[in-house]
Amino acid sequence: MTETVLAILNQPSRDAAPHDPDADAFWFAAPLEEHVQVQDLGVIRGDGVFETITVVHGRPQALEPHLARFERSARMLDLPVPDAGAWRRTIEAVCAELDPVREGFVKTVYTRGVEGSDRPTGWAYAAPSGDQTPARTEGISVVTLDRGYRHDVERTSPWLLQGAKTLSYAVNMAALREAGRRGADDALFVSTDGYVLEGTRANLVMSVGGRLVTPRTDIGILAGTTQADVFRFAEDAGMDTSYELVTLADLDAADALWLVSSVRQAAPLRSVNGVTRAMDLPLTERINEFLLSREA
Amino acid sequence: MTETVLAILNQPSRDAAPHDPDADAFWFAAPLEEHVQVQDLGVIRGDGVFETITVVHGRPQALEPHLARFERSARMLDLPVPDAGAWRRTIEAVCAELDPVREGFVKTVYTRGVEGSDRPTGWAYAAPSGDQTPARTEGISVVTLDRGYRHDVERTSPWLLQGAKTLSYAVNMAALREAGRRGADDALFVSTDGYVLEGTRANLVMSVGGRLVTPRTDIGILAGTTQADVFRFAEDAGMDTSYELVTLADLDAADALWLVSSVRQAAPLRSVNGVTRAMDLPLTERINEFLLSREA
Repeated sequence: MTETVLAILNQPSRDAAPHDPDADAFWFAAPLEEHVQVQDLGVIRGDGVFETITVVHGRPQALEPHLARFERSARMLDLPVPDAGAWRRTIEAVCAELDPVREGFVKTVYTRGVEGSDRPTGWAYAAPSGDQTPARTEGISVVTLDRGYRHDVERTSPWLLQGAKTLSYAVNMAALREAGRRGADDALFVSTDGYVLEGTRANLVMSVGGRLVTPRTDIGILAGTTQADVFRFAEDAGMDTSYELVTLADLDAADALWLVSSVRQAAPLRSVNGVTRAMDLPLTERINEFLLSREA
Repeated sequence: MTETVLAILNQPSRDAAPHDPDADAFWFAAPLEEHVQVQDLGVIRGDGVFETITVVHGRPQALEPHLARFERSARMLDLPVPDAGAWRRTIEAVCAELDPVREGFVKTVYTRGVEGSDRPTGWAYAAPSGDQTPARTEGISVVTLDRGYRHDVERTSPWLLQGAKTLSYAVNMAALREAGRRGADDALFVSTDGYVLEGTRANLVMSVGGRLVTPRTDIGILAGTTQADVFRFAEDAGMDTSYELVTLADLDAADALWLVSSVRQAAPLRSVNGVTRAMDLPLTERINEFLLSREA
């Protein structure tokens, strides 16, 4: 059996009542038992937010950027502001309990709670990661799929929650299945007005004439914690970086492409829409070495 | 305490293994205890479908159309086909256990199950409905909100799952909160190309020169079970009905407007975007009498 760890937060936000006024800040629970009520809005409405944080040798990576994005997502959903201190301590506790493995992850989930209760639900679940070596060393294939939105909906229509990492991921999972039907490993979303957005669970990074480029983060996509650290790597290595509006023509013209995310880290794209792409495997290896050795 | 009833299905689809090979088709469970695992894809990905069915005097209404839509939604998500017989028996059992109340509802939830388990999760939860009289007799106010999609995405981009009733409802709930911020009771979604779509949890019906009109159901919206029965009422009453592409100008020109759904049934719109609208309260009353007296 995979060894997994679960901790449930007593009071995920200081702006809401604790679940048990006499209990500690969190408690460990059996991961394979049931801990969520059927009327939790997280399950009946996908009404909540999450983060997936890489854990290397028991240490959560990019924890503060993840916590910052978690709070940003919660604010976009008008959830009570998460108590960063309580979440940080819980995450560190589950990481410490995880069996020593080179790579694992911790998933934090924060929902609006049981309908009518006004008490949000929160937990942190940690598990070993599957082997990511094939994706990192052999690359992955992607297809581009219409996301259905213009690139500016985050500004015009914030209730569409683009840019928030919500539990309402059914479209992302359906896009992943559609990619599979088209013989690809993953999908890359494109706006209706022709801008490349993001993967189903990852950000795009391109190498263009020695620079690293990623789509601007104000176009209804997630600001990637891993992408930010890839840029930190690039800056350390003396490479220029930039956030741009990326068209399909820019994608075609790039020297190399990656999908970057927690857990998988940097996966080079070996084909886009069935067209083979050059991969920069030496640079990929350097990026992944950097990402996996992050101290914070 | 509100008296609620919960039953969990042992084998929600014949195409997947039962949870307990020795158990009955379903079992009753305590509604306020925990029955969902934290790694259930229903909660971590909003990856599942649901229906909300009105229960009048213990009798589920429009059960067969609800079951048909449940199956349609499941197919759109590539879920194993739900076992209609098992769901029907479970729904009837929870309705029979519900305390005698004039109006209640049963919510059926069907998820992809715990990640990696290949066993979907299913339950039926029943509870008394809140008092819907004010919405039915005094009307509700709505604002129109951009849904971000063209009206044809259901055909061009089926992975966007428009037209499926999924658990990924965070956008619907955010639109409802946005409506509240604008001083309205609910929102009415409009496509980016100017067609009126549906409410956050209801269909639009308009009265136009003695006809009842609703938006065409092939434009990425849910085919409404209540709307279908409103049309059945109209046909019985000798009124013409039609499914049309409805523009904002059509909305402005209509004689009367309703949002129709399970639980609330027909709620007349007393204002749209702050503009007072005429309500046809005698017709509303006849429609609601018809809806609440449905035998099937």
